[in-house]
Amino acid sequence: TIDPERFRETFERYSEIGRTENDGLHRLALSEEDREVRDLFVSDLEDLGLDVRIDGIGNTFGRAEGTDPDAEPVLIASHLDSQPYGGRFDGQLGVLSALETLRAFDDEGVEHRRPIEIVNWTNEEGSRFKPALMGSGAFTGELDLEEVLGHADADGVTVAEALDEIGYRGDEPVGPREEYHSSLELHVEQGPKLEEEGLSVGIVEGVFGMAWLEVTVHGDADHAGPSPMYSRKDALVAAADVVTAVRRLSNRFADDVVTTVGELEVEPNSINVIPSEARFTVDVRSYDDAVVAELVEAVEREVATACEREGVEYDLEEIWRIPHTEFSPTVAETALSAADAVDASHRAMVSGAGHDASYVNEITDTAMLFVPSVDGKTHNEVEFTEWADAVEGARVYAETVRRLADA
Amino acid sequence: TIDPERFRETFERYSEIGRTENDGLHRLALSEEDREVRDLFVSDLEDLGLDVRIDGIGNTFGRAEGTDPDAEPVLIASHLDSQPYGGRFDGQLGVLSALETLRAFDDEGVEHRRPIEIVNWTNEEGSRFKPALMGSGAFTGELDLEEVLGHADADGVTVAEALDEIGYRGDEPVGPREEYHSSLELHVEQGPKLEEEGLSVGIVEGVFGMAWLEVTVHGDADHAGPSPMYSRKDALVAAADVVTAVRRLSNRFADDVVTTVGELEVEPNSINVIPSEARFTVDVRSYDDAVVAELVEAVEREVATACEREGVEYDLEEIWRIPHTEFSPTVAETALSAADAVDASHRAMVSGAGHDASYVNEITDTAMLFVPSVDGKTHNEVEFTEWADAVEGARVYAETVRRLADA
Ligand SMILES: NC(=O)NCCC(=O)O
Ligand SMILES: NC(=O)NCCC(=O)O
Repeated sequence: TIDPERFRETFERYSEIGRTENDGLHRLALSEEDREVRDLFVSDLEDLGLDVRIDGIGNTFGRAEGTDPDAEPVLIASHLDSQPYGGRFDGQLGVLSALETLRAFDDEGVEHRRPIEIVNWTNEEGSRFKPALMGSGAFTGELDLEEVLGHADADGVTVAEALDEIGYRGDEPVGPREEYHSSLELHVEQGPKLEEEGLSVGIVEGVFGMAWLEVTVHGDADHAGPSPMYSRKDALVAAADVVTAVRRLSNRFADDVVTTVGELEVEPNSINVIPSEARFTVDVRSYDDAVVAELVEAVEREVATACEREGVEYDLEEIWRIPHTEFSPTVAETALSAADAVDASHRAMVSGAGHDASYVNEITDTAMLFVPSVDGKTHNEVEFTEWADAVEGARVYAETVRRLADA
Repeated sequence: TIDPERFRETFERYSEIGRTENDGLHRLALSEEDREVRDLFVSDLEDLGLDVRIDGIGNTFGRAEGTDPDAEPVLIASHLDSQPYGGRFDGQLGVLSALETLRAFDDEGVEHRRPIEIVNWTNEEGSRFKPALMGSGAFTGELDLEEVLGHADADGVTVAEALDEIGYRGDEPVGPREEYHSSLELHVEQGPKLEEEGLSVGIVEGVFGMAWLEVTVHGDADHAGPSPMYSRKDALVAAADVVTAVRRLSNRFADDVVTTVGELEVEPNSINVIPSEARFTVDVRSYDDAVVAELVEAVEREVATACEREGVEYDLEEIWRIPHTEFSPTVAETALSAADAVDASHRAMVSGAGHDASYVNEITDTAMLFVPSVDGKTHNEVEFTEWADAVEGARVYAETVRRLADA
């Protein structure tokens, strides 16, 4: 059984690295803060006597051998990077639940037949570098390693350069060395459902499909005063039309569809100049992949219509698409019976947030556990999970991992 | 008479400082490029034997004495700062027409009864530091000097700090030392009218009134995936509604009304995060001050409605308002008869762009000359004026100044 005291102390210590004034977390992938937390993670793995490996995209593994050297290992993982001014629980709670699980096994001499590998995946968030789930995507071969190493942040720094800069481009080849038996990830729900129903644990059976688009509208800069309205080609006016259309788009589909414009940047961004360029992103999600495809087409039509209306040109690129995930019923059932065994309240659910576990599910039987997010808030400094729920989740997690590692 | 060769060479030399790849000009107020062009301007004034003064907001004066030491001087002026990636003619052409006028008088020993003061006003554009017409506004007492010295750019650098940084916070008190007789400014039209009618010179009889608003919408950051649409407080969705409304607003008024959103910035600006903040500007203009007041109220209502619809809070600040200007009929008539005397084609017109001459008109009889802008384009690297038109304008300018300085 896990040690709630130690679990919480460790959580507080990790939360110091990149902590914001408002007790949030600003620890962008491959930043200086990310280096610092990775160093701490590696030293914690070494203190546990684990064999540590770092691969060519910075994914960091610690291996606890099992009693059967020939058994396929169990992979337990999440991520330590954060959103800009995000929360402390997103990702970190999963990595530290896995760490606490291994510490508890070590403490109490819990024998496990299978090796257990704990992993911190690189760049889950996709905020500084697109797309999200980059480390797990490259590891499982779902994303092209060379391609993503070349992706640049807003300042033009590539993933490869940032890895070198913080010293986390490891020697290990990127990809599995062997077959895994199964995988489990704990994460905060990031939505309101568990809290609304007063439950401590979600058994996650699937993840939404999603697509990301990047649109650049090319207008014509001119003076906000003497340029008659009829002469204008205002890139922002067209972009604003699309923002409104994207918000409304979800209404045409079932309940679960979500559509968001998260980034928008204007050039030259001067008060008395008609915008010459507007660059924005669109994020569309549904559990139904056909609906995601329809949403993408609808967005494409809205962009075309808005730009024609304003007489401006545009570029549109689909930069990421991931189909919906159906997790392993076997792993989910193991989690469910573990939750019953430790007497935790729970329900089955699907996730609207993307998770590394989706890519991992492509190479081994995978499922996830959720713990509640207060008010459903996340990607926000106020993100919070009641500590009692975090502990409940970690208990179910440790028990599930124990069962998987002996299966 | 002016020397077209020298005029053009000087123009080319000045255009090198802050020249962009696409032959535009990027010379923001009080930047390193602005320092460099100011140094050149001062040395050109000194070469002409003028008495040079720099005041506490960086306005730079050169004085050519007249034959009558007691006569009130004529002020001839424009500005050397540019928009981000703006054009080479906006402002600079006016300063260099004034310089060429003084050079021509010097060359040919043209005697003038009145002293003539040439001025480069600080920060006409209002892009890096708001508001526009800052130097002339402080000089004429229409803007509060201490207040504007404290205004900061996007990086938090204040006007006072930037002046010190480039060494242009001068010793001269800010404000007129004596009464002026009159003032004249040449500028590019920045609109399409002169070109449409095939004319070389506009005699500007007035300038639009205008108001600038700054709006910050405060939403709530959350995850683009698991946050149900009904739970969202998306700052960008509300801002986009206002952008659309501002574009439409002009349709409710007469032809001359223009309404623009030039700046928009989103926080945290992450693809999978619901925007927590959207900051944007609104620029509204009309020759009718009552219409400007109505436009401001209409924008305030649109912001309130859009924010209520989305359930978000906002701050709205009117950061600048300037009434419409009616220039001096006497100076305009002098310009008109000078245009006839040198045989330049011309028409009377009003300006939709703000000009330092509006503030100067508060302290002395003022008017302006316009030369055509190809396609009406400005605040854009492609800004262009046919050289024949520039020369025609400078000829009318020199002749008008000669007449004013002897009146
Ligand atoms: N869980 C999480 O925040 N993932 C980031 C990727 C996404 O779903 O946008
Ligand atoms: N002439 C000019 O570009 N002025 C800048 C101030 C404004 O009109 O916005």
